[in-house]
Amino acid sequence: MAEVKLIGMWASPFVRRIQVALELKGVEYEYVEEDLANKSELLLKYNPVHKKVPVLVHKGKPIAESLVILEYVDETWKNNPILPKDPYQRANARFWARFIDEKCRPALWQAVWGKGEEREKAMEEACQNLKILENELKNKKFFGGESIGLVDLTGNFITHWFVDVIEEAAGIELVTKEKFPILWKWVDEFVSCTPVKKNLPNKEKLVEYFRAGFSSGSWKY
Amino acid sequence: MAEVKLIGMWASPFVRRIQVALELKGVEYEYVEEDLANKSELLLKYNPVHKKVPVLVHKGKPIAESLVILEYVDETWKNNPILPKDPYQRANARFWARFIDEKCRPALWQAVWGKGEEREKAMEEACQNLKILENELKNKKFFGGESIGLVDLTGNFITHWFVDVIEEAAGIELVTKEKFPILWKWVDEFVSCTPVKKNLPNKEKLVEYFRAGFSSGSWKY
Repeated sequence: MAEVKLIGMWASPFVRRIQVALELKGVEYEYVEEDLANKSELLLKYNPVHKKVPVLVHKGKPIAESLVILEYVDETWKNNPILPKDPYQRANARFWARFIDEKCRPALWQAVWGKGEEREKAMEEACQNLKILENELKNKKFFGGESIGLVDLTGNFITHWFVDVIEEAAGIELVTKEKFPILWKWVDEFVSCTPVKKNLPNKEKLVEYFRAGFSSGSWKY
Repeated sequence: MAEVKLIGMWASPFVRRIQVALELKGVEYEYVEEDLANKSELLLKYNPVHKKVPVLVHKGKPIAESLVILEYVDETWKNNPILPKDPYQRANARFWARFIDEKCRPALWQAVWGKGEEREKAMEEACQNLKILENELKNKKFFGGESIGLVDLTGNFITHWFVDVIEEAAGIELVTKEKFPILWKWVDEFVSCTPVKKNLPNKEKLVEYFRAGFSSGSWKY
């Protein structure tokens, strides 16, 4: 067995976070594609609690949950840090990563797939949250400063997934360049980075996937 | 201004997590009680995104979100560690802390306050999740081993709050000693620890508070 193994699913932004992180660190790994409609024994063995991807297996020991994995990767391979050194800056990075995962993502999701009044409310909430993110990004190239870090990796859902793919698949326009110029600039910078670029799923395939809906329901948004 | 200030609310388990952590570290701090029905300018200034407690203010700089604060406290005051040293064990602690906050807490909450079928489903889910936690605790005094750590602090909602107070306030029995003997033993050990004991809100006052319901709705469960 390879020393580092990643159990993933090609369309998942959570899995791609880890791929970019491993790329940044220069860690070689074996990638195992999971069929979430027919979960493998490997996945059930290594993530019996959530039964979800990504799972990183390092020296035979599994780690689940993408934000937990990112911290593990950063603590295990210390080159090209994903989190800053200073405790206060680390707290800030963790705060914004949580904000993206717990506030931005669910609202964006509901704004696309919700119904009626619920959807309207989610659209408003999503825009408010993205404005807060814009404000945080002001005068910075990345959330992490000059290089990508935890918050950028967590925000990958907004980049290639939401702005480039899901809006097209759903036929809506929410995160427009006019409304969110700073976020757009960041999306451009982010997807142009080599480690990110190398780990983006094919756009057309992704649009098709999202159009078909999430019949499996096995990887959370 | 005191070097360390904690903006809190007496009945919040999230705030108490931080109080126990500061107690463990021997950090002196000024405690500021917040009226969540009429939020102070201090809270709105220091946590403009969530407008919630707890907020830790260290040397004038605010940190919000209880799990983020716990990591900050552990990185800033290094005595009596809250997280283990080893990256894999750290990842495990973070995994279980998230499991408690994201899976156990909402299910327990719904099991008490939900309606009809939704409540039944939540009860089943809550029991399944607590069984998973029991399994994790097997042969250990605390989740952190011999001394309390991140997972124990995060699990405080289950101890004094759920088992001791909310079940009584709601007139239900869910986390019984018969069903969850290992968790019960842990609850006993946890609330008997001096730093925890010193920071438990008065039980009768808390029962009354939960009976009256959460009219403010400002601190999430």
